[in-house]
Amino acid sequence: MANTTVDLDHALAVATDLAIQAGEQLLTRARERITPSGAQLTIAQKLNAVDLVTEADEDAEKVIRNGLKKHFPDHAFVGEESYGQGMPNNEYIVGDEPTWVVDPLDGTVNYIHLFPTVCVSIGLCVGGVPVVGVIYAPFFGAAYPPDGSASAAPSGHLFTAIQGRGAFISSDGGKSRRALPLQSPAPPIPPNAPKGCTLAVEWGKDRRDVPGGNLERKVNSFWNLAGEIGGRNGKGGMVHGVRSLGSATLDLAFVATGAIDIFWEGGCWEWDVCAGICILVEAGGIVVDCNPPEGFDPSVSSTTPIPAAPLGGRRYLAIRPCSDSPESSETAREAQDRLVREVWKRVEGVTYSRPGL
Amino acid sequence: MANTTVDLDHALAVATDLAIQAGEQLLTRARERITPSGAQLTIAQKLNAVDLVTEADEDAEKVIRNGLKKHFPDHAFVGEESYGQGMPNNEYIVGDEPTWVVDPLDGTVNYIHLFPTVCVSIGLCVGGVPVVGVIYAPFFGAAYPPDGSASAAPSGHLFTAIQGRGAFISSDGGKSRRALPLQSPAPPIPPNAPKGCTLAVEWGKDRRDVPGGNLERKVNSFWNLAGEIGGRNGKGGMVHGVRSLGSATLDLAFVATGAIDIFWEGGCWEWDVCAGICILVEAGGIVVDCNPPEGFDPSVSSTTPIPAAPLGGRRYLAIRPCSDSPESSETAREAQDRLVREVWKRVEGVTYSRPGL
Repeated sequence: MANTTVDLDHALAVATDLAIQAGEQLLTRARERITPSGAQLTIAQKLNAVDLVTEADEDAEKVIRNGLKKHFPDHAFVGEESYGQGMPNNEYIVGDEPTWVVDPLDGTVNYIHLFPTVCVSIGLCVGGVPVVGVIYAPFFGAAYPPDGSASAAPSGHLFTAIQGRGAFISSDGGKSRRALPLQSPAPPIPPNAPKGCTLAVEWGKDRRDVPGGNLERKVNSFWNLAGEIGGRNGKGGMVHGVRSLGSATLDLAFVATGAIDIFWEGGCWEWDVCAGICILVEAGGIVVDCNPPEGFDPSVSSTTPIPAAPLGGRRYLAIRPCSDSPESSETAREAQDRLVREVWKRVEGVTYSRPGL
Repeated sequence: MANTTVDLDHALAVATDLAIQAGEQLLTRARERITPSGAQLTIAQKLNAVDLVTEADEDAEKVIRNGLKKHFPDHAFVGEESYGQGMPNNEYIVGDEPTWVVDPLDGTVNYIHLFPTVCVSIGLCVGGVPVVGVIYAPFFGAAYPPDGSASAAPSGHLFTAIQGRGAFISSDGGKSRRALPLQSPAPPIPPNAPKGCTLAVEWGKDRRDVPGGNLERKVNSFWNLAGEIGGRNGKGGMVHGVRSLGSATLDLAFVATGAIDIFWEGGCWEWDVCAGICILVEAGGIVVDCNPPEGFDPSVSSTTPIPAAPLGGRRYLAIRPCSDSPESSETAREAQDRLVREVWKRVEGVTYSRPGL
């Protein structure tokens, strides 16, 4: 099905409304947990934090699913909460038809603990490709207004994109927008990258202590990228900083702003990245496999273009938007691919995969 | 000099004004870097990002130092920027007299890259103890208003405390406040902590690849705390999540809110932690040495109270506010000390120290 069969402006407007509605609802629920007064206290005492979050998460998904169904009754829907209950084999089910791919609450651990890196993520795929993306981070705003003023205008970070039309950030619910990346023109990729780059990584849920397991591979990869140049058996990358937010979706959003140069992660799912990939690609970034390809030889230089990561492949390496180098003939894309290879030289491949991909 | 010689309400009011003024100035400078129009573009093109940040950082310190001098001409001042230029031996100079301990820009790497975990930190010590603390995080608000509306009311996260009078968070510059920790009563420390806890750590600047070096000790400690229970030679802590913000000050602020259960870090300085310690302690948290004491035997259980970390000791382990356990006779402080010991069992001591402390 071609993109032209979906009114993408209408899709973005609906998705933005629903992301803000769901996000503000999550914020209100969080405030109820921290306001020891009246009926709200009763709720907070009856349920523990995890129950409260599960309920908030499922309710946010309902808001989004029902809203999308009303406006786009023929579109398919893949949401983290509903998918998790019906897909024991983890089958990848995003097809060619217009499909909304939704994480109503990315950063659940953060939300349980009231840590602010939490967001709502709504993506629309057509032909299997993300064409609309909306991410709303309600705690990145005036999150703690006086009691009773919860109806204040939404002020969280809102990230949006439509395929071919650029990506944007807003602090007023989309009424005014700034183009992404934030710096224009985007700075070039440094010649000695990953040195000087910010790196976002996540420790994830797979904590098994087995030789060659994902946790070991991740830690060695983080360590290599952080270590001094020349250290770590020559793999030291001396990145400028290592950040972990506990939200792959926000990691991608901050790659799109240009604030994070490199996001390297295995283990997340299409609803964690669908909106983020749309926004990042529209901002000028790329998303490829976090694992080096079979036969990758770090000693052989190459300029073969690197293919995009499949949406449901669970392995992602994102590089920020950049400009052509003023000092060489290197194009922006060549510089991004160069940085991908520099990361591949330093990481140990993780074992996440997906049936059918 | 006794606390009563300083009007702490006045000190808090002045510090709050100056933190917001400096923070909003940092935000404005950041917006200038991302607004390619008119004179602002000229500035951004003339200097590179690091120069722009150095200038912003020094100007923010000037705002704060001059403001404090005007209101408190007799007080001493230790600021990151001015200290760094005059103290080659890293001598600890906070004495008993009223001393303002200021980081005008914590999270410099973040600010260079336009990553939002940036803050201004202003603490006042009397008798060597933090008695007033103000942290202002300007990007945790409506950071991207329409161009030309930079004069909007400050909406960043503002954290404040006065010794003996509690700690607070505000989204409107302090006009309305919520008490910290956010949840009241604060949840007890889980019986099997660090399992279930959020952990904040920082990779820091010491990236030397030497056996027994700080990077190795840190990575092994992070890995132990993250690994599954029973893994890592019995040291696996299975924390709920590992977060790295690139700002020790904000890490402490989020321990004070209760969002982070454990902050474990070596290498930062008194201006990174002075305001944060005041706020955290007022919220009900504790800050002790991140290294186990000499002779610490993980196999021997103990209930000996654990002393607070010295302000300038460069080694910090912070535990969030909590309540007495409803299921046992364990007090809040006993539970915090229990969690400290559980962390000490799993970490490798770092080698940061301070002459004279």
